[in-house]
Amino acid sequence: MTEPIPAELARRIKLVILDVDGVLTDGAVHLGQTQSGEVVELKRFDITDGLGVKLLMKAGIHVAIVSGRESAATALRARELGITDCYQDASARKLPLVETLMQRKGATWSEVAYLADDLADLPVLERVGLPAAVANAVAEVRACAVWTTNRQGGHGAVREFAEGLLRARGEWDRLVKEYRDARGS
Amino acid sequence: MTEPIPAELARRIKLVILDVDGVLTDGAVHLGQTQSGEVVELKRFDITDGLGVKLLMKAGIHVAIVSGRESAATALRARELGITDCYQDASARKLPLVETLMQRKGATWSEVAYLADDLADLPVLERVGLPAAVANAVAEVRACAVWTTNRQGGHGAVREFAEGLLRARGEWDRLVKEYRDARGS
Amino acid sequence: MTEPIPAELARRIKLVILDVDGVLTDGAVHLGQTQSGEVVELKRFDITDGLGVKLLMKAGIHVAIVSGRESAATALRARELGITDCYQDASARKLPLVETLMQRKGATWSEVAYLADDLADLPVLERVGLPAAVANAVAEVRACAVWTTNRQGGHGAVREFAEGLLRARGEWDRLVKEYRDARGS
Amino acid sequence: MTEPIPAELARRIKLVILDVDGVLTDGAVHLGQTQSGEVVELKRFDITDGLGVKLLMKAGIHVAIVSGRESAATALRARELGITDCYQDASARKLPLVETLMQRKGATWSEVAYLADDLADLPVLERVGLPAAVANAVAEVRACAVWTTNRQGGHGAVREFAEGLLRARGEWDRLVKEYRDARGS
Repeated sequence: MTEPIPAELARRIKLVILDVDGVLTDGAVHLGQTQSGEVVELKRFDITDGLGVKLLMKAGIHVAIVSGRESAATALRARELGITDCYQDASARKLPLVETLMQRKGATWSEVAYLADDLADLPVLERVGLPAAVANAVAEVRACAVWTTNRQGGHGAVREFAEGLLRARGEWDRLVKEYRDARGS
Repeated sequence: MTEPIPAELARRIKLVILDVDGVLTDGAVHLGQTQSGEVVELKRFDITDGLGVKLLMKAGIHVAIVSGRESAATALRARELGITDCYQDASARKLPLVETLMQRKGATWSEVAYLADDLADLPVLERVGLPAAVANAVAEVRACAVWTTNRQGGHGAVREFAEGLLRARGEWDRLVKEYRDARGS
Repeated sequence: MTEPIPAELARRIKLVILDVDGVLTDGAVHLGQTQSGEVVELKRFDITDGLGVKLLMKAGIHVAIVSGRESAATALRARELGITDCYQDASARKLPLVETLMQRKGATWSEVAYLADDLADLPVLERVGLPAAVANAVAEVRACAVWTTNRQGGHGAVREFAEGLLRARGEWDRLVKEYRDARGS
Repeated sequence: MTEPIPAELARRIKLVILDVDGVLTDGAVHLGQTQSGEVVELKRFDITDGLGVKLLMKAGIHVAIVSGRESAATALRARELGITDCYQDASARKLPLVETLMQRKGATWSEVAYLADDLADLPVLERVGLPAAVANAVAEVRACAVWTTNRQGGHGAVREFAEGLLRARGEWDRLVKEYRDARGS
């Protein structure tokens, strides 16, 4: 990331929404079956993203997941990350999900950041105060974003976004110090 | 891809046939067993390919899968994509499968596009109106194709091909707008 | 591959021995457990390698697998490839396995090719007529090999080696033509 | 790595501690569920790392694993590597784990090497005699390390570190010769 996230946008953010496929994952699904006919579906999540989510929460920012596909893997990862707002809609209609979430959290559009990769994200991305794209986002999404990660989804893009947002708010160094001190005594 | 797909070829297409291993997947199979002896086989599919298939269908193009290997993973992914014509032959004899499919769909060779990667695809590839190769295709397949994706199989090659085909037909922008509008209201 | 395999070495080969981890796979093992405690172990095999093995067999060359680790995944992949000589030894003592195999097949050292990646392969590699290394082999193995693939293990290295060997013997074009003709009628 | 590990640091090492996610693995977790609701979690380990660990042990160095996340995959891999000291703490408080381990092994800080990738490793990394980082480590960790691998975690970083350490101690060539001789007779 050459350019930092604009500080005035970053400081307003109360709610960070993460897409799943291509953002929290590398956009792949590992699909198959056992001999006896049990379907198995695995997704690749990045461990370093976890600390990014944790530090966003420490900064008092609410973190939510909105996916355009239904998958048990997503629910499992959300639970591990401590993300209670995890919405999945098989027809990729994300706008109503986000509007409901915003109402419940009392957040306005300018207070929302969204990290996205594909066409289904555009209706939400166009409305939020801080639209962001992962390195692997399609051209239409990158064109709509004010900030793009250097890292690919599932390979640390969420961690990079969290760090970028918290740095723009001037909170990164303090949060890292606190995290480190809590583990160094 | 620098060169677009020739418009006159693209406009004729009624049937798009996708190979599986190396095209819808990255050409790998994740194979193993559980402790109690259950065989497990997983394949890596790319989520963004899904929207490519969906938009081809929206354009009235029939999409089919023809694989030279039998795998439950392929059938599962076909079902998720809404592809009902999914043929698998363990001896990689694809030509008779494709001819049966064409008869049922009333399509002639010039109305068929085929996206392929390996030697087993050549007999079909040589006959179709729009032979296409993925970036990871072997030299013989690339030599036979009129168009080659920049993306690897299992990493968005099908999405790229779908976009290239629909752009060549002058339908991409309209289809994206419709998809987006349906999710933005 | 800039340099072809020397024709006089290639023409003598009756037996091709493939290492598994790092050669037929990318050197990774995907390991874990289900909730109820079932251990699962998966390995990544490359589908295009399969046709390489098939064409070696069509040329009358015997293909065997010798692994320095025990894994159900290896046995499963061997079965799928039609390789009946699949030996695994947990302590990575490959030399006695190879000597037994050679006796049974009536092959001398100059008639054996071995594709390898790591230190455990050296005692065999130093003795065979055609020692070959994958792109990801350690320095000691590459130093011992007369030929090195451009492709990584688990990403088509076996296919590339099979093609290189059959080309050096002047058999590749005929075998591809036969394979293709059998699927094009 | 251009620069070798300083010999005077390397010769003092009695205890090598390996982080798991991003060091013994590529930092990913493959997560999902079977149809009947069984959670599955897989991690990617690198086979060549195994020989690195084995040769460290042959050199009389104690090897331990300390992870900031709980996973059955880690315990399974530790068992396969013959590593009996495998500690996992879900809150990533590694310092007390390492201090307990050092006491049991009678090791002082200058006798410990630690290979790490992320912020949770800093409290330990700052104290050990030989702090090392994998290529994919975050900036804070790389800044704290005296040596950084060229290879990524889960792609041979542990093997590279083991070789680097044993070379710096002047023990690599002898250990490789012994390993090779034991397999070549």
